[in-house]
Amino acid sequence: MARRFNLIQSPEDFESFKSFMKEPRGGGAMDVSVAQGIVDDVKMRGAKALVEYTAKFDRLKLEEETLTSQEVDLSELAKLCPENVKRAIEFAAKRIETYHAKQIPSDHRFVDDAGADMAWRWGAIDAVGLYVPGGRASYPSSVLMNAIPAKVAGVKRMVMVAPAPDGVLNPAVAYAALTVGISEYYPIGGAQAVAALAYGAGPLLPVDKIVGPGNAFVAAAKRIVFGDVGIDTIAGPSEITVVADKLNDPSWIAADLLSQCEHDPAAQSILITDDEGFASKVETAVKDQLMKLETQETATVSWNNHGGIVIAKMEQAASLVDLIAPEHVEFAVEEPEVLVESVRHAGAIFVGRYAPEALGDYVTGSNHVLPTSGAARFSSGLSALDFMKRTSIQRISVDAFNALAEAAETLAIAEGLPAHAKSVSIRNNN
Amino acid sequence: MARRFNLIQSPEDFESFKSFMKEPRGGGAMDVSVAQGIVDDVKMRGAKALVEYTAKFDRLKLEEETLTSQEVDLSELAKLCPENVKRAIEFAAKRIETYHAKQIPSDHRFVDDAGADMAWRWGAIDAVGLYVPGGRASYPSSVLMNAIPAKVAGVKRMVMVAPAPDGVLNPAVAYAALTVGISEYYPIGGAQAVAALAYGAGPLLPVDKIVGPGNAFVAAAKRIVFGDVGIDTIAGPSEITVVADKLNDPSWIAADLLSQCEHDPAAQSILITDDEGFASKVETAVKDQLMKLETQETATVSWNNHGGIVIAKMEQAASLVDLIAPEHVEFAVEEPEVLVESVRHAGAIFVGRYAPEALGDYVTGSNHVLPTSGAARFSSGLSALDFMKRTSIQRISVDAFNALAEAAETLAIAEGLPAHAKSVSIRNNN
Repeated sequence: MARRFNLIQSPEDFESFKSFMKEPRGGGAMDVSVAQGIVDDVKMRGAKALVEYTAKFDRLKLEEETLTSQEVDLSELAKLCPENVKRAIEFAAKRIETYHAKQIPSDHRFVDDAGADMAWRWGAIDAVGLYVPGGRASYPSSVLMNAIPAKVAGVKRMVMVAPAPDGVLNPAVAYAALTVGISEYYPIGGAQAVAALAYGAGPLLPVDKIVGPGNAFVAAAKRIVFGDVGIDTIAGPSEITVVADKLNDPSWIAADLLSQCEHDPAAQSILITDDEGFASKVETAVKDQLMKLETQETATVSWNNHGGIVIAKMEQAASLVDLIAPEHVEFAVEEPEVLVESVRHAGAIFVGRYAPEALGDYVTGSNHVLPTSGAARFSSGLSALDFMKRTSIQRISVDAFNALAEAAETLAIAEGLPAHAKSVSIRNNN
Repeated sequence: MARRFNLIQSPEDFESFKSFMKEPRGGGAMDVSVAQGIVDDVKMRGAKALVEYTAKFDRLKLEEETLTSQEVDLSELAKLCPENVKRAIEFAAKRIETYHAKQIPSDHRFVDDAGADMAWRWGAIDAVGLYVPGGRASYPSSVLMNAIPAKVAGVKRMVMVAPAPDGVLNPAVAYAALTVGISEYYPIGGAQAVAALAYGAGPLLPVDKIVGPGNAFVAAAKRIVFGDVGIDTIAGPSEITVVADKLNDPSWIAADLLSQCEHDPAAQSILITDDEGFASKVETAVKDQLMKLETQETATVSWNNHGGIVIAKMEQAASLVDLIAPEHVEFAVEEPEVLVESVRHAGAIFVGRYAPEALGDYVTGSNHVLPTSGAARFSSGLSALDFMKRTSIQRISVDAFNALAEAAETLAIAEGLPAHAKSVSIRNNN
């Protein structure tokens, strides 16, 4: 049963709600040393180590020269993807591409009042590694959401790794990979795959950045290789906050809450409403829907352990959302724009009664890789920008040099850096 | 003595140059467990632990209630900053502010062909922690370069931590802090300061993101808290690559190489030139200048252990620079624009014979926090964007819902996520 906080009747509930938001939801208990050992081993022994780990963890025999397996062929697998799923993947891919193409930043150049010709230029990262989990969480949408922003940014080499335990890989993942133009694929996973992407292993040359979700070993390995290569954020369990008034159909809102709960026992769904009666109807609907849900086991644990219902005035809703800083938030209320204007911390906002968050997971075109666990306070969803980098270009004429030299020299001397000062003054004396 | 690679006479030198680029330059040998212990302790015991560590490491007595020390008063210290340094700080601050203000991104909104009203909005991070090292590397320019992009982005709360060993803090750092409008200052440092910023300690409330350079303990602590708060990149030792033809004054180029060498024994300066005679003249000039340099001890170690001279055709220069992916590169050649066009991996490019990199450290206005150790392959210098985050806003009408529902439901079912599918289908049946 979800926790309930009635901030209207019991304002003191606010403190318990704040504590509730700080409760750990797991994921942190990982022993980093296991991942560290695997990363070091792959860094040292390369393809040989990869072959061993893949045989051990995935029961899959890899050829050491190619790091491929006869059992896993993307093109053959893709053929097994049902036609309606193929069409849906193409539909989603096109929309995601259109959306992310609008994110490409402009270069900039200007001459400032000292005569310095200042510019910056954006360029694509050369090579990106895309981690796709195996097993139950092997999602074609994850391939689309991670690869398409890279493609749009201009990344030339997109390397996908996805473990294929016992030779099994989701045909829809294979189809999505071919749709987005993955350049290389290796059936490897875990910390060993992250290490191979970062440092190279046999035929797999190192990439520059690694993105994509994974289990605790993958997250730990990404944290270890961070700095040697770029990584995306460390993703935590998924979250949704739904702000809903009593004019909603309670069963719709219940379905939205459960759509996050089914992801992970550590997922968190929170309802904020100003009507206690409506809250109870949603709670009943959640129970009803849980009974018929194939994913009821996961969803029940998530709802019972981490679910929350907050009764509050609508005027409080925005600040409650900011406190949560949720990955996703839905505004299913009569006047959502007031909330849209006020909320500052959220990965993605879904506006209106016909905007279930699941649409954004697949087909609105916006990215579903979003900051979790309150990271929306300081970070953003995945975008084309994450696959680009900016070079600053400074063209300095003699006149501009003359305008800047004195202050630079003064600061260099003040900082105890005489060679810095000299590199300026030596040009002055000429 | 710097290593020399003559790619014109001995093309096989290219392999040794590649190995040279892979040589570790230190920084990685840090024992993470020490930092982990300190972070855990501060997380647990808060201000009490901070007071103890500061007494132990910095020999400074802090009041536990305020985390301040009577010995360290920013306003009093700032008065001790020499007038010419004050003016230079103001000059630099104004230029840095002008430059970074141009980086503020635009919000975006459009209705796509399915009728979905898609948008994104940028907002500032609420609270940022700025780490300023103590001792020799306590630089006012570092305060400016880290704080001004945050200020320009709209960050309301800017918390500075800078250790004051034995009560000593650089007056220029104090003046810079007041110039940029730091909201809070605590005289703390090391892993303990990073932990306090991330998790809060007594009067110091947690921030959302931590930026700024630091020693190995600080870097390790930033890696540990990453995810709970945002961090900037893990900065390595500084680097410069200078591409210079024989028309340069060798002593100017020598000064530029040494300006990086004096930063750190692990810093790296590399000269790329097409003229062997010129290379030798630069090498002689480096030796001459080293003899008179106050920072000769550090600079000599850097130049002897990590310095490099590459003789190559100018046509090879761009690809050599891309291989290095240097933090800074100077193009002191007759036709620099060819190089500017071709080079893809560099933090900052300085163009022309009057563009010593030191100008960019202080006063061109561009940021001096730049990707090191080849990270320019996948990351960018610090910018206003680093202090902002983007929220995606999706307004979905009934018509847009109808256009998107089928594909979303298909993908949800294909991914084994029935509650996702239900949150869509339940609205269809209404």
